[in-house]
Amino acid sequence: MKKVLLVVLTILVISNGFSQKVNKEDSTMIRQIFTTSLTDGASYDWLDYMSNEIGSRLSGSLGAELAVNYTKEQMEELGLDKVWLQPVMVPKWTRGTKEFSYIEPSPGVTTTADVCALGGSVPTPYGGLKAKVIEVKNFKELEALGRENVEGKIVFYNRPMDATLIQTGGAYGGAVNQRTAGAKEAAKYGAVGVIVRSMNLLKDDYPHTGTMSYGDTPAHLKIPACAISTNGANYLSTTLKLQPNLLFYLSMSCKTHADVQSYNVIGEIKGSMYPNKYIVVGGHLDSWDLGDGSQDDGAGCVQSMEVLRILKKLEYKPKYTIRVVLFMNEENGLRGGKKYAAEAKRKGEHHIFALESDAGGFTPRGFSFTTDDKNFIQIKSWESLFEPYLINWFTKGGGGADIGPLKKEGVVTVLAGLRPDSQRYFDFHHAANDIFKYVNKRELELGAAAMTSLIYLFDKYGVK
Amino acid sequence: MKKVLLVVLTILVISNGFSQKVNKEDSTMIRQIFTTSLTDGASYDWLDYMSNEIGSRLSGSLGAELAVNYTKEQMEELGLDKVWLQPVMVPKWTRGTKEFSYIEPSPGVTTTADVCALGGSVPTPYGGLKAKVIEVKNFKELEALGRENVEGKIVFYNRPMDATLIQTGGAYGGAVNQRTAGAKEAAKYGAVGVIVRSMNLLKDDYPHTGTMSYGDTPAHLKIPACAISTNGANYLSTTLKLQPNLLFYLSMSCKTHADVQSYNVIGEIKGSMYPNKYIVVGGHLDSWDLGDGSQDDGAGCVQSMEVLRILKKLEYKPKYTIRVVLFMNEENGLRGGKKYAAEAKRKGEHHIFALESDAGGFTPRGFSFTTDDKNFIQIKSWESLFEPYLINWFTKGGGGADIGPLKKEGVVTVLAGLRPDSQRYFDFHHAANDIFKYVNKRELELGAAAMTSLIYLFDKYGVK
Repeated sequence: MKKVLLVVLTILVISNGFSQKVNKEDSTMIRQIFTTSLTDGASYDWLDYMSNEIGSRLSGSLGAELAVNYTKEQMEELGLDKVWLQPVMVPKWTRGTKEFSYIEPSPGVTTTADVCALGGSVPTPYGGLKAKVIEVKNFKELEALGRENVEGKIVFYNRPMDATLIQTGGAYGGAVNQRTAGAKEAAKYGAVGVIVRSMNLLKDDYPHTGTMSYGDTPAHLKIPACAISTNGANYLSTTLKLQPNLLFYLSMSCKTHADVQSYNVIGEIKGSMYPNKYIVVGGHLDSWDLGDGSQDDGAGCVQSMEVLRILKKLEYKPKYTIRVVLFMNEENGLRGGKKYAAEAKRKGEHHIFALESDAGGFTPRGFSFTTDDKNFIQIKSWESLFEPYLINWFTKGGGGADIGPLKKEGVVTVLAGLRPDSQRYFDFHHAANDIFKYVNKRELELGAAAMTSLIYLFDKYGVK
Repeated sequence: MKKVLLVVLTILVISNGFSQKVNKEDSTMIRQIFTTSLTDGASYDWLDYMSNEIGSRLSGSLGAELAVNYTKEQMEELGLDKVWLQPVMVPKWTRGTKEFSYIEPSPGVTTTADVCALGGSVPTPYGGLKAKVIEVKNFKELEALGRENVEGKIVFYNRPMDATLIQTGGAYGGAVNQRTAGAKEAAKYGAVGVIVRSMNLLKDDYPHTGTMSYGDTPAHLKIPACAISTNGANYLSTTLKLQPNLLFYLSMSCKTHADVQSYNVIGEIKGSMYPNKYIVVGGHLDSWDLGDGSQDDGAGCVQSMEVLRILKKLEYKPKYTIRVVLFMNEENGLRGGKKYAAEAKRKGEHHIFALESDAGGFTPRGFSFTTDDKNFIQIKSWESLFEPYLINWFTKGGGGADIGPLKKEGVVTVLAGLRPDSQRYFDFHHAANDIFKYVNKRELELGAAAMTSLIYLFDKYGVK
C-alpha cells in the first residue's frame, strides 16, 4: 500500500508540476490553433479543389500528376522555407472500361451484379468468363473443399466485416485477407476467378476496390479478382442456395503497365534550434480511381498541409525542422513511404516524431502512438490539453502505413496516427461514394487542429 | 496535502472495490447489449419507417397521428407489460403554401431568397409584404437604432453561430434568441417583419425553421418571421452594403389553429422489486415539418424503444419499472413533457432516473447528468464500463427538454441526456435535409446500446 501511495503521490506531484508549466501558454496556443482552423482554415477549400477539380488520383494517373503539381503550388504559396518533389517510381494499373457482370440462375435469366476489379487484378479473357460459383467464408473452407470442388469455378469470398467491433478498422483487418490474398489462394486450387464481398459494414450497392497481390503465383495461373457490393454479395449468396449451379459472368479489361515516374510532395519550415532533426506530418496523395478519394486520403493531405499553414499563420518558430510529406502510392505499393524513409536514412535525417492522418476526415477522437514508456508518459501528460476539444483517447500502438518505413529504417523516435471517429469510414472507403460532399467541414478542421496542436507540443518539448 | 491524500486514497479504494464488484457481470451484459444493437437491432428499421413511410410529424399533423399509432403498435409487438396513450392537447400550426420571397436591389431586378416561416409565425398580409431591410447582430444594436430607424422596415438578424465553440449546442444557444425572440423585440420598434439567419454552421441553401414566441405582443402588433439560409443571409448582407435601400418581398400563408388532441406514447416493463418506482427513457415523437425529422428526434424515439426491446431480448428482469415515453410537442410547446410530469406528480410516481436522447443519432460520446455529488460518484465509477465503446465523456449538467418538467415537479432523482458527437447536428436541424439517409446505422445503434447500458446500471444499482 505504501508503494502504491508513493507512486500515486509521485504521479500527482509530477503531473501537477508539469501541467502548471505547460498549461497556460500551451492551452492558449492550442486555443488559437483550433480557432484558426475553424474560422480561417484552408483545409476544406484545398480538399474541394483536389476532389472536385482534380478528382481521383491513382498512382500513375493524370489525376495523381495534377495533384502533385497543385499541392506543390499551394505549399509554395504558404511561404515555407523549402518545397520540393522527391522522385519515386510507382506502379501503374488501369481499370479499363467499366466492368460488366451478371448472375445467371437459369439459362437466359440474368441479373446485373455490382462489381469492380480489385486493384492489381489481371483482366478476364477477351469476351469475359462465365463459370459456376463456389462460396466460402475463409481460406480454411477453401482448403477443405479442395481442387475437386474448386477447379474451373469462381470462388466467392463472403465473410462480412464483424459489426460487433467498435473500431471499424479492426473489423476491416479481420476481413481484408479475402481481398488481398483471395485470388492467390483460389488459384492454387484451379479457380478461374474470385469475387470478394466488399469491405463495407453498410448494405448498399457500391463495390469497394482495394489492393490485392498474387504473391508468387506464376503469370499464367493468375486469375481475375473483383469486389461485389454488400447487397450484391447477399443476393448472390441467397441465389446460390436456391440455384447452386448458377453461372456468373465477368468481364474486366484492367491492365498493369510499366512503372512510371511520380513524386512525394514535401515542404518544410526550418528548425531554429535543431535544423537537422525532423518532425514530419503527412497523408497520401494517391487514391483509388473510384470516387475522388476525399476521405482516403485527400483529407489527410490537406490536414497535413494545414498544420504548417497554421503554424506559419500564428508565427510560431519551430525548434525542429517540420516537414509535411504527401506520400505517393500508399494504396498499391507504398513506394512513396519507402522512398522517403530510405532517403532519410541515406542522409542521416533523424526524425523525432512522425504523424500520419489516413483514417478519414471525421471528428478526431485521439491519437495512437508507437513509442516507449518514457515518451508515452510525457504524451499522456498532454492529454488534458486536448480535453476541451473532446479529444481524449491517447493510446499506444499505431502510426500509419506511410510512416511505418521510417521505423523500419530506424530513423524515427515516436510515430503516431490521428484517430478520427471510425464509424462511417468504411461506408466510403475505396468506393465511388468517397466524394467531397460526405466530408464535414468542421470535422475535417478539428482534425487538422488536433494534428497541429500535437506537432506543436512535440516541437516544444521534444522527445525523451 | 494530507487531506488531498486521504481523498485520493478513499476514491482509489472505493472505486477499486466497486469496480471489482461490478466489472465482470456488468461488462458481459454491456457487451451483449452492444452486440444485440449492432447485429440484431430494430432501431434503424423503425426509423426508416417513421422517416420514409410517415415523414414529418409536426404536432397536430397527420404525420404526428400516424407516428403515434405506429410506435404504439410497435411497442405492443415487443410484448411489454403495458402500452398506452397519454392524452395531451397540443398546438397546431401549419405552414401553408411554400413561402416566397425575393431581394430587389433596384426596381424590377430581383433574386429569390431561400426562406421558410418560423414555427408559430403569423402570415404576411395577403399578397405579401415588401419593405426596406435593416441588419442587426443582436437586440442591443436594435435598441440603439431605435424606432426612427426600424419603423416600417424588416429587421434582419444576422449573427452567425460561433464556429470556435467545440460543442455546437453552445453555439446554438448563443445565437438562437434571434429566432425565438427576434419578432417580439423588433415589433417594439415598429418593424413589419423579421428575417433570421438560419441556425446552421454550414454555408448552404437550406433555411432552418424552429420555434419563436411573440411573448405578450398584442395580436395586431405581431409581425411575420422567417428564417433565411446561411448562403442567403450572406448574400443579403453583402447586397445591403451595396444597396442599403433594397427591398425585400416576403409572402407566407402560415396559420395557428385551435389546439388539438394528441398523445404521448408510453410502454413499460414492470419492476420486480420496486414496481412503483420508475426509470424513464425517451425522445420526442413530433418533429418540424421540413425534412422528416430523422435526427430530430426520430433517432431519439427509436433508440428509446430499442432500450426496452434489447432488455426484453436479453431476458433482463428489471427491479424498477422501466418506461419508454415518446413525448409529443417538444418542438413548439413542450406539452407532452409537461403533461407526463404533471401526471407523474399527481399519481405519486417517483422516478429514480430519466434519460433523454434529443441531440441526433450520431456516435455517442457520453452522457451529461443533473444530479448531486453522491450519485455522480457512483455514475463516474461506471464510466470505465463504457470505455471499450469509446464512450468516455460523463459530465455534470444536462438532461433534456422533455424530462426537465419531472425535475420541476420534484418527481425525479437523476436526469441525463445522451451526448452524441455534435459536429453535424446543426447541418440538418429543423431543415429540409434532416432526412433518413443522413443517419448512419452504426452510429444510431451505438447510441441505443449506450442508453440501454446506462438504464441497466441504474436499474441494477439504483440511486444513492
